[in-house]
Amino acid sequence: MQYPFAEKYDASDYIILNSNINPFGTSPLALKAISENLSKINMYPSREEHEKVKNQIVTKMKREYINVNEKQIVLGNGSDEVIEFFIKFGIRKFKRPKVIVGDKTFAFYEYCARSYGLDVIKVPLKNFGYDTEKIIETAKKNSPCLIMICNPINPTGKIIPKKELEDFINEIPQDSFLLSDEAYFEFAFYLNCKDWRGDDYRSALQLNIKRPVFISRTFSKAYGLAGLRLGYLICDFSDEIERHISPPFNVNYLAIKAGEKAILDIDFLQKTVENNYNGLRILESIEGAIPSWANFVLIKVKKKDIYNELKNNRILVRNMEQYGFEGFIRVSVGKIEEIEIFQKIFRKILNQ
Amino acid sequence: MQYPFAEKYDASDYIILNSNINPFGTSPLALKAISENLSKINMYPSREEHEKVKNQIVTKMKREYINVNEKQIVLGNGSDEVIEFFIKFGIRKFKRPKVIVGDKTFAFYEYCARSYGLDVIKVPLKNFGYDTEKIIETAKKNSPCLIMICNPINPTGKIIPKKELEDFINEIPQDSFLLSDEAYFEFAFYLNCKDWRGDDYRSALQLNIKRPVFISRTFSKAYGLAGLRLGYLICDFSDEIERHISPPFNVNYLAIKAGEKAILDIDFLQKTVENNYNGLRILESIEGAIPSWANFVLIKVKKKDIYNELKNNRILVRNMEQYGFEGFIRVSVGKIEEIEIFQKIFRKILNQ
Repeated sequence: MQYPFAEKYDASDYIILNSNINPFGTSPLALKAISENLSKINMYPSREEHEKVKNQIVTKMKREYINVNEKQIVLGNGSDEVIEFFIKFGIRKFKRPKVIVGDKTFAFYEYCARSYGLDVIKVPLKNFGYDTEKIIETAKKNSPCLIMICNPINPTGKIIPKKELEDFINEIPQDSFLLSDEAYFEFAFYLNCKDWRGDDYRSALQLNIKRPVFISRTFSKAYGLAGLRLGYLICDFSDEIERHISPPFNVNYLAIKAGEKAILDIDFLQKTVENNYNGLRILESIEGAIPSWANFVLIKVKKKDIYNELKNNRILVRNMEQYGFEGFIRVSVGKIEEIEIFQKIFRKILNQ
Repeated sequence: MQYPFAEKYDASDYIILNSNINPFGTSPLALKAISENLSKINMYPSREEHEKVKNQIVTKMKREYINVNEKQIVLGNGSDEVIEFFIKFGIRKFKRPKVIVGDKTFAFYEYCARSYGLDVIKVPLKNFGYDTEKIIETAKKNSPCLIMICNPINPTGKIIPKKELEDFINEIPQDSFLLSDEAYFEFAFYLNCKDWRGDDYRSALQLNIKRPVFISRTFSKAYGLAGLRLGYLICDFSDEIERHISPPFNVNYLAIKAGEKAILDIDFLQKTVENNYNGLRILESIEGAIPSWANFVLIKVKKKDIYNELKNNRILVRNMEQYGFEGFIRVSVGKIEEIEIFQKIFRKILNQ
């Protein structure tokens, strides 16, 4: 399959709302760490340096009421790479050719699984969320080696409510591995603590689950490091993955150094999720918007070609046709002033 | 298998001669490009940005009398990743479980092949070089999907002479893919032009070969970007690999920006290979040294534990026991002043 890339423009006078990045750029602490370590980029990154980032991740997760230890974490070249580790590990363990994903969800699950020659079974979403019953039924029938979900869901912004998630994880077959991709965790969880939409979101790691689950997280979204590529996997097989699957020098040195500091920058995270909370409230006031727990909103728009008209006004949003959502756009939460400009121009185009 | 890492020390007062890195750090042009692009690391790298690096690679290779076009090149997260692309592509095409590598050569070939569950057949080296006849014979008997060689050879520093390489490539079975890993190409080729050891080294791409070959190269060695991770594969299937195997955002943004400029910095390359030429002449004057075309020298040392004694004197070299070369060390070509200190202390230890 062809990968559905977002359109990219170099011109800096575009408002970029098409790829779920952090509108404030990158944490100043991370940028400082990069500048201070430029003299060492002729040297290979090391596993010892991975350990320092893992320590910081453990500390961060304690703030999320999650107990993990460093041995459960493996770092990757973006969360894409740890998703690939999960796929490779599952194939090694089960040697079965099928995987299940949600239809019209994050394209990388299907892309990567197909690159290994796996059969991809796509279960349709139901009201923009996962149809967990249907996934369970499909899994029981097809014996997939792997099931991959994202929570919050890219691109709909919805979540699997915590009770449903707990039941789902307990009911899928024991001999299928489950990946829960929590790339947008920080937006859903930290907003949850403000009682934004009640108390319905939890990480799979915050539930009482009695089976192995694989969780992927990323520094690309809330931490603003998409370009540097740093993600991580949490599971009970991380040591085995690191010794037999992960390439020895997979994460670049500046990502390691930046990640170690970015994760300490609680002010930057706070500013990011506060802005996101306020941006979501504005975007969701638009007719056709699906309520979102992430840093983007899927919007059904009656006017055809709204995407191109926005582009003519120098605003890039995601045209969701290539994802299979005809008549939808996906708008990332930019800075409040960017969202306001988007909203104004969007309404103007609709009223023309 | 466990990956044989080099030992790493943070203390800056060690002389680091254990991992084949560039002793001059990184090209100033590359460092400038990194600093100028820090404000964009919250954004995803793009295929369009890959194209700019590919253009520069094409230009560089013209200087090497090699005609390639951008469509034959695929970029990777270090050359490790493009070696993995090669393995994945070979498995897709041939669906046979065997690969052939040289015994005691670059550990990643075996590590990565095993991570895919492949059987690895290791053909012993002969007088520190490849036994090309034996590889051909083994390939005819075993029908491997893949054969992986490095040229110059890590860790012996030897090459396959150009005539032998041409015959070898023409004689291996047509239904096995061949990877020639040319990570140390710049050291061998640019020194060759000075008539260093006659005129015996050529890239597989500089020969008259009538079958597909896969070449990997890297920015980690001569260009001093090991920590940033940038490598590339050259073959006739690059487009297919990019569309179906390469992850969409595999190379980090700063590596892209640094690579684009590093490859233009001919002065830095010249300084690096000149220093290497002079460093090799000093290191090869040591008894037990194997003549090298790369940026390191394998040395047989009668004194046991020389490795630890050097470390006590704050010089790190590679202990080659874990590679299977008992009684050998591998010494990278540092700056001339570092090599001179090494030589002095090395002789002192031997004479104790």
